[in-house]
Amino acid sequence: MNIEIINTGSELLLGRVLNTHQHWLGRQLADAGYEVARQVAIADTGEAIQAAVSEAMERARLIIVTGGLGPTSDDITRDKIAELLETDLHEDPEVVEHVRGFFTRRQRPMPDSTRVQAMIPDGAEVIMNAHGTAPGLVIPAGESWLIMLPGPPRELRPMFTNQILPLIHERFPRAGGFACTTLKSTGLGESLMEDLLKEPLRELEEQGLVIGFCARVGEVDLRLSATGPSSQALVDQAETIAREVAAKYFYGMEDETLEQTIVALLSSRGKTLALAESCTGGYLGHRITTISGASAVLLCGMVTYSNEAKQKLLGVNEATLAAHGAVSEAVAHEMAAGALRESGADYALSVSGIAGPTGGTDEKPVGTVYVGLASRDGTIVKHRINAFDRETFKFVTAQQAFELLRREVLGIDE
Amino acid sequence: MNIEIINTGSELLLGRVLNTHQHWLGRQLADAGYEVARQVAIADTGEAIQAAVSEAMERARLIIVTGGLGPTSDDITRDKIAELLETDLHEDPEVVEHVRGFFTRRQRPMPDSTRVQAMIPDGAEVIMNAHGTAPGLVIPAGESWLIMLPGPPRELRPMFTNQILPLIHERFPRAGGFACTTLKSTGLGESLMEDLLKEPLRELEEQGLVIGFCARVGEVDLRLSATGPSSQALVDQAETIAREVAAKYFYGMEDETLEQTIVALLSSRGKTLALAESCTGGYLGHRITTISGASAVLLCGMVTYSNEAKQKLLGVNEATLAAHGAVSEAVAHEMAAGALRESGADYALSVSGIAGPTGGTDEKPVGTVYVGLASRDGTIVKHRINAFDRETFKFVTAQQAFELLRREVLGIDE
Repeated sequence: MNIEIINTGSELLLGRVLNTHQHWLGRQLADAGYEVARQVAIADTGEAIQAAVSEAMERARLIIVTGGLGPTSDDITRDKIAELLETDLHEDPEVVEHVRGFFTRRQRPMPDSTRVQAMIPDGAEVIMNAHGTAPGLVIPAGESWLIMLPGPPRELRPMFTNQILPLIHERFPRAGGFACTTLKSTGLGESLMEDLLKEPLRELEEQGLVIGFCARVGEVDLRLSATGPSSQALVDQAETIAREVAAKYFYGMEDETLEQTIVALLSSRGKTLALAESCTGGYLGHRITTISGASAVLLCGMVTYSNEAKQKLLGVNEATLAAHGAVSEAVAHEMAAGALRESGADYALSVSGIAGPTGGTDEKPVGTVYVGLASRDGTIVKHRINAFDRETFKFVTAQQAFELLRREVLGIDE
Repeated sequence: MNIEIINTGSELLLGRVLNTHQHWLGRQLADAGYEVARQVAIADTGEAIQAAVSEAMERARLIIVTGGLGPTSDDITRDKIAELLETDLHEDPEVVEHVRGFFTRRQRPMPDSTRVQAMIPDGAEVIMNAHGTAPGLVIPAGESWLIMLPGPPRELRPMFTNQILPLIHERFPRAGGFACTTLKSTGLGESLMEDLLKEPLRELEEQGLVIGFCARVGEVDLRLSATGPSSQALVDQAETIAREVAAKYFYGMEDETLEQTIVALLSSRGKTLALAESCTGGYLGHRITTISGASAVLLCGMVTYSNEAKQKLLGVNEATLAAHGAVSEAVAHEMAAGALRESGADYALSVSGIAGPTGGTDEKPVGTVYVGLASRDGTIVKHRINAFDRETFKFVTAQQAFELLRREVLGIDE
């Protein structure tokens, strides 16, 4: 079954807005057993919209169009598709009431212009928008099935998950079953992970298991999927084997992040964390506090960019700084131990390094970093070279720090 | 002139990797006076690549294809396009040497598989890759001009800016001139910005000035562009007027971020900064330290998530916390003043608020935030309601804090 996504919006082609729909919808569909064959972005002109939809109708059984359903003058997707399909529009009183309610709840008058969102092509199914005004629309288009979704991600995503995906399952049942699971890992490169799993999974692969690796710097996803009546059993067996073989590298599943794992792990054990960051500048704290519930875990963070701050806030010795320099095993050690002592937390992570692009030496090149972990059991420091651009450096360093903590809490050996 | 971008890669359609090429290339081309008419993402199969290129050749004068030039088995873009264009491939000795040198510098043997990257379609121009092994390729394709670029952004971006864009300018000169500038603003919504500028810019608009607004939460870009022989003068005049009318809202130009502005502003004046963050959890520090050179400006940050940390690290009074709560004007005031005092910095920013989704009350709903700024001249606190998801909350709050500081340093009144 062929699926195509059409993203409308001139701002996409002018590079003013990053198109995240392709990524998000592709992932949701793939994990539900449907593959997108093509994605197209076009300007919001009638000509471009109608040309893209006509072409897609020749190839695809399911067409998903995003954007252009709102009330402003450049929102023309609904009208232009109705025109192409030669169907009339009618006003849907239920949608009018929904739009009116949206404004009433905000104690604002309903602008007349917003009423256009209640114009529905004849024969279309209306999908109410729980997070905005413009409804989604599902309509037959020749041999295809066409779905229109509102552009804002906070409206599109819940609508797709809760209302559209069940309809797709109903309309295009995965004959004979489909199963898919993603294990998330860090600390091992893609090819080493592949080497580790190749032999143990070979037999299941011959039975139809599909193994996919997706590597980003600092993370490798292992995606296990299968079709057919025994797909779930195959995927379950593969997951069991992968966990036996490479247990210590897997920190989570599906879309889980390492910071989610850390917050869940510490809060379930009633443990607390302090941070002492130099080169990462608050990034570890930022990631931890992106998780709702972080306040039960994170006591404080000290961003000690200057040597004075390291001494004053963390009690790092002037002599240690003078003898070894700020980027050193000894300073990372004192930073972690100092953060533990000052905060009273159960664990403290420290980071000191050279993010670059300047500041490197022959002895300590750009990317040099020391990651420390202090607990009641003592303090350990790891030395790494993360020679990347500044943002990637921060991400990879945070991965290493969080992973060091995860393994310590779980008692996983190196 | 019609431009189309084709992004190859099954990982794009499976939603494993976010496609940033569309956004980045679209922006570069638009700012150089070229508009992308369509962008397509397809799987890396021969059939999909050849179908997408054939279709684009019927419509576009310039086709940019990304990805699939590397050494692995799914890198088939070069071969499949050569096949479609019915041209043979030959090995380019200069590229072989370039690939060999890449491995030699890393003191690693050159794998035989990487040699395939030196296979060049007859008639193609080779664009050496300064940041990787696979060269870019420029080749005539029927009536069109086809450019192949390597997939990794750190290779594609410098190659496009330094080597490809000059070729595009040469091949497709903007007859009669083109000028474009983008002013970046914060603190004023899109429609208010539009209201402010509409009248003053009307005359220039009648002479051909094109005004574009691009709003994201917490930021509005004003894009001024024009074509024709007097385009530069038109854009310059418009910029002058915009700056007269709305001076205080503009913090930078083109791709500048507010944190870049802050670091440049403070370091040029020899001033230093300290941060006291609660709900933003280190995000302000992260943004500041993403800028190379931040170490000259940022002395330290205190992420005081707990009340104890606020008292211990910043000297916030227990009585203030008890009387007003952690999220209050009084606590934000003491946090900023405490960070200034403890760090000895010239400026200190503080943030205390409720990021949500839980923790709100009738009196202090989710999104409530107090942003404080302390300097030698005293301390001010602003109250805002940023009712967004957690990530947007952090971004908008940081924008408000940095903007408060920028205006204070520059002596701009409210």
